[in-house]
Amino acid sequence: MHADTTHPFDEATRLTPGADGWTCHTHDAYANMHGPFGGVTAATMLGAALERAGAVAQPVAMTANFCAPIRPGALLVRAREVRAGKSVQHLAVEMHQDDGTVVASASVVLAARSESWAHQVPRMPDVPCASEVAPLDTRGYRLAWLQRFEFRFIEGAPELGRTPRREPASAASTLWIRDAPARALDFKSLASLCDTFFLRIFQVRGVLVPAGTVSVTMHFHAGADDLARQGERPLLGRAWASVFRRNFSDQAAQLWSDDGKLLATSTQIAWFKQ
Amino acid sequence: MHADTTHPFDEATRLTPGADGWTCHTHDAYANMHGPFGGVTAATMLGAALERAGAVAQPVAMTANFCAPIRPGALLVRAREVRAGKSVQHLAVEMHQDDGTVVASASVVLAARSESWAHQVPRMPDVPCASEVAPLDTRGYRLAWLQRFEFRFIEGAPELGRTPRREPASAASTLWIRDAPARALDFKSLASLCDTFFLRIFQVRGVLVPAGTVSVTMHFHAGADDLARQGERPLLGRAWASVFRRNFSDQAAQLWSDDGKLLATSTQIAWFKQ
Repeated sequence: MHADTTHPFDEATRLTPGADGWTCHTHDAYANMHGPFGGVTAATMLGAALERAGAVAQPVAMTANFCAPIRPGALLVRAREVRAGKSVQHLAVEMHQDDGTVVASASVVLAARSESWAHQVPRMPDVPCASEVAPLDTRGYRLAWLQRFEFRFIEGAPELGRTPRREPASAASTLWIRDAPARALDFKSLASLCDTFFLRIFQVRGVLVPAGTVSVTMHFHAGADDLARQGERPLLGRAWASVFRRNFSDQAAQLWSDDGKLLATSTQIAWFKQ
Repeated sequence: MHADTTHPFDEATRLTPGADGWTCHTHDAYANMHGPFGGVTAATMLGAALERAGAVAQPVAMTANFCAPIRPGALLVRAREVRAGKSVQHLAVEMHQDDGTVVASASVVLAARSESWAHQVPRMPDVPCASEVAPLDTRGYRLAWLQRFEFRFIEGAPELGRTPRREPASAASTLWIRDAPARALDFKSLASLCDTFFLRIFQVRGVLVPAGTVSVTMHFHAGADDLARQGERPLLGRAWASVFRRNFSDQAAQLWSDDGKLLATSTQIAWFKQ
């Protein structure tokens, strides 16, 4: 049905206009443990907000809430304008399963951004080029979505065992990352990439435990021109965490262009058991 | 009308049940440049979510979006349950001006949290006790809300001039902070305290420029018992920023109990001009 050249990410986030919002479908290529990879769910909701706004405004901030497990099949996406100011627009998005269950919601802030005084506080970490770092071999992993990204770990690659570590490992990871197959960066894929960092609980404890992202917030510091300049080349990603307590953990991340511009920062809260 | 013992924060965040949600009123004691201090707006919406949920669940995450300037007067607050799972509840809150304008919205995640494996990555910065740090003299400042907090700066106190600095100053601040007059900590005041860090653009440039928070996300890492233990004593706060670009800047913050527990982490995106 689709041309051979359609990237699976574009298939997975495709919105078909309907009488009451849009429909989209879960995509096998992005299947996670229970339902689709959250980055695609967030990117789909961002796409709906951008469609609804239909303007020159670009995303500044987004919070996506994962409310219920998503079953394979059709999803209904609705986006409404909460408030449009002179240069800032607020949208609310909800994604429903066909039985009416809200499976995800999002608030999206769009803005017409212009040049201003500029300053970036942190410098990109001093790391080897992406081409000098071997990609993670994900062929042994069961989860389909892991095949849809190229992960080149510099620090904090997943090391999972059968029993938890005695002492918690570092919660930090640094890696080059991009879509697989390669795809030119846009706001939707930047949002999706913000959610590609494996849950820190797995890394710190060294085992898989029941866990999942509950809410993720993304702040976009780049314009469409910055993303176009980055194109298909890998981004540098950094992720870390500060607290694991009473079934929840935070997680923070940065995504850098390969010429040292901080394109997005992200925080999330994840549930875990044990 | 109120007993002499009512704290201005409780007056400012008071919700009166109505036929269609709650009403509240802006409070002169928390007036900011244009409309009320955002922390009180966020705390009021959190209060509505907690009222609506009415359960033993506690806040885990909240994103508050400031959509339009708030004029002095009455506000209508509506909270609806988006989804209630076994242990996690998602709520959506909207605050309206009397002409129907949505002035603020929020998504709130509540959860029934239980004991689990626990680990805190960062240690509280090694700083002098609150009693050893002089409070900021806010009597010279015009903004009422500044009188409602006690700021004891260890690093990064506001230093504002008439012209911007030649070189950007550090974006980091470290300070002891609490309500003034002192008030026992609860989730509403913890949310409010997350928004008390002066916008980083003022500090980095050393001047006041037109600026305001657009969206703030708070992650709560503490239980009601932790907050009760902290009581009225000052919290240690840290704030920093990473990017100022095209009219927007991010800002991150931590709030620590005085015995070294990270109680909340927060990120926000703020608009600025120039």
